[in-house]
Amino acid sequence: MSDGEIAVSDLADASLDVFAAHAHEQPLVRVRLDVSYDGTDFSGWAVQPGQRTVQGVLQDALSTALRVPPLTLTVAGRTDAGVHATGQVAHGDLPADVWAGASGRLVHKLSGILPRDVRVAAVTQVPDTFDARFGALWRRYVYRISDAEGGIEPLQRRQVLAWRRPLDVAAMSAAAAPLVGLHDFVAFCRRRAGASTIRTLESLDITRTEGEIVCTVQADAFCRSMVRSLVGALIAVGEGRRPVEWPAELLSYDTRCDDVGVAPAHGLTLVEVRYPPDDQLHLRAAQARARRG
Amino acid sequence: MSDGEIAVSDLADASLDVFAAHAHEQPLVRVRLDVSYDGTDFSGWAVQPGQRTVQGVLQDALSTALRVPPLTLTVAGRTDAGVHATGQVAHGDLPADVWAGASGRLVHKLSGILPRDVRVAAVTQVPDTFDARFGALWRRYVYRISDAEGGIEPLQRRQVLAWRRPLDVAAMSAAAAPLVGLHDFVAFCRRRAGASTIRTLESLDITRTEGEIVCTVQADAFCRSMVRSLVGALIAVGEGRRPVEWPAELLSYDTRCDDVGVAPAHGLTLVEVRYPPDDQLHLRAAQARARRG
Repeated sequence: MSDGEIAVSDLADASLDVFAAHAHEQPLVRVRLDVSYDGTDFSGWAVQPGQRTVQGVLQDALSTALRVPPLTLTVAGRTDAGVHATGQVAHGDLPADVWAGASGRLVHKLSGILPRDVRVAAVTQVPDTFDARFGALWRRYVYRISDAEGGIEPLQRRQVLAWRRPLDVAAMSAAAAPLVGLHDFVAFCRRRAGASTIRTLESLDITRTEGEIVCTVQADAFCRSMVRSLVGALIAVGEGRRPVEWPAELLSYDTRCDDVGVAPAHGLTLVEVRYPPDDQLHLRAAQARARRG
Repeated sequence: MSDGEIAVSDLADASLDVFAAHAHEQPLVRVRLDVSYDGTDFSGWAVQPGQRTVQGVLQDALSTALRVPPLTLTVAGRTDAGVHATGQVAHGDLPADVWAGASGRLVHKLSGILPRDVRVAAVTQVPDTFDARFGALWRRYVYRISDAEGGIEPLQRRQVLAWRRPLDVAAMSAAAAPLVGLHDFVAFCRRRAGASTIRTLESLDITRTEGEIVCTVQADAFCRSMVRSLVGALIAVGEGRRPVEWPAELLSYDTRCDDVGVAPAHGLTLVEVRYPPDDQLHLRAAQARARRG
């Protein structure tokens, strides 16, 4: 996924989304959607022609529920194909009269329209300065791995990576510690033209509970494939294929490191996105745009 | 499911399973298997001709892993089609030399043979007096329901029942309390000829956490469809369709009550089976057989 980069195709996101059919008639209100999905059968978040995507399914469901033309959603974390979410956040703009008429029953109505692998837990009106993508203070992802001898707990198999060899969690934790902080993570990122790969990694914790290893990672934003590359590097350490110091050494690279494996998508879940209080929303969005441009 | 009844077809289970190919050659050892499965794509536990069942898949996998003819497994809870397990227990008998040669790597080997919806977490040698079915002190099942306005959390949808109307958990708990104890649960059971429907319900707790309602039920054993019928009756109370006193009134019935709905299979998971210490195993099995015959 890519949480905070600006590319040419995204410039439209930075301006207030305009709801074409009503733009000249009446004011818009901004709404925040709290979204969960099982990423297994989606080609990721972002709309792509001919693909089933979370954004596409959600935009169509909103259009059906509200009887309006499709609107464009902006999201906190543009997850890749196969990545899940339990705490995804998106925003969109609706004509005020449409929102006023629908808000009370919209969540219930959407649950009857949406397929069972995507869910809207809440829709709430937010200030016009709320930006799901650039306004976020931080994103938190969880990556789950099982190295249990008997394999993955069957009911968890869609969201946990099976690893056939035992992993040394103490070594993984030691390797993770120096990655925390403000660094250029280009070695762990798929480069996009004009986008910064400097990020503040706020925490990277690895814990083991009953054969399941949980990597919890929090940052102001992530570049494309960054979490899965961090996990890939830590797995190499956990298996003993690389020394504990190796992931930190990669922070001095000035280009993508092809020795870093990208862990499979299905182990990854976006679990939470945090925003500042309403009166600081505009400051945060301006700061994020400036820093990551 | 049916956890403790004796029918004509089951009489063979009560004697020590005999491993045909080796029976006259050498001693057998009894092994306990700790098993989990996602019941979605299984026609229940018990082998049925032409159906994919957990017992059938497990017995075939053991036969492949050990290079022996198929053996018969005896299980703690014979779950119905669609019911899941995270703490199922089974036993079987193996020739001592086969066990001696395979025990160290059997769990790992099975994880490479079994499909991803069933898992053996452990295989351990137990006394000959261990009986997964009649030796159990109690079974614990969990039934999960979500009445959240936005629907079920997508990653949980295979194991949680979606309920579109809000449920009153306090009313459900009040209705559940008088069901605990020694009763004839025939109103909640599918009758089988010659089988008792008297059971000791040790606990039936209903809790709510963030839009998910969890019913945890523990008994010495359960008759067929008993847990799902108990949950069906409690849902009727939770919705306000039946008074709080109704489920307890059904304890005076002497036949199955057709007004009790059977809750769908996929909300149900067998989570734990408890056995006595080794030196009391034979007493428990004899007691259970006598009581439920």
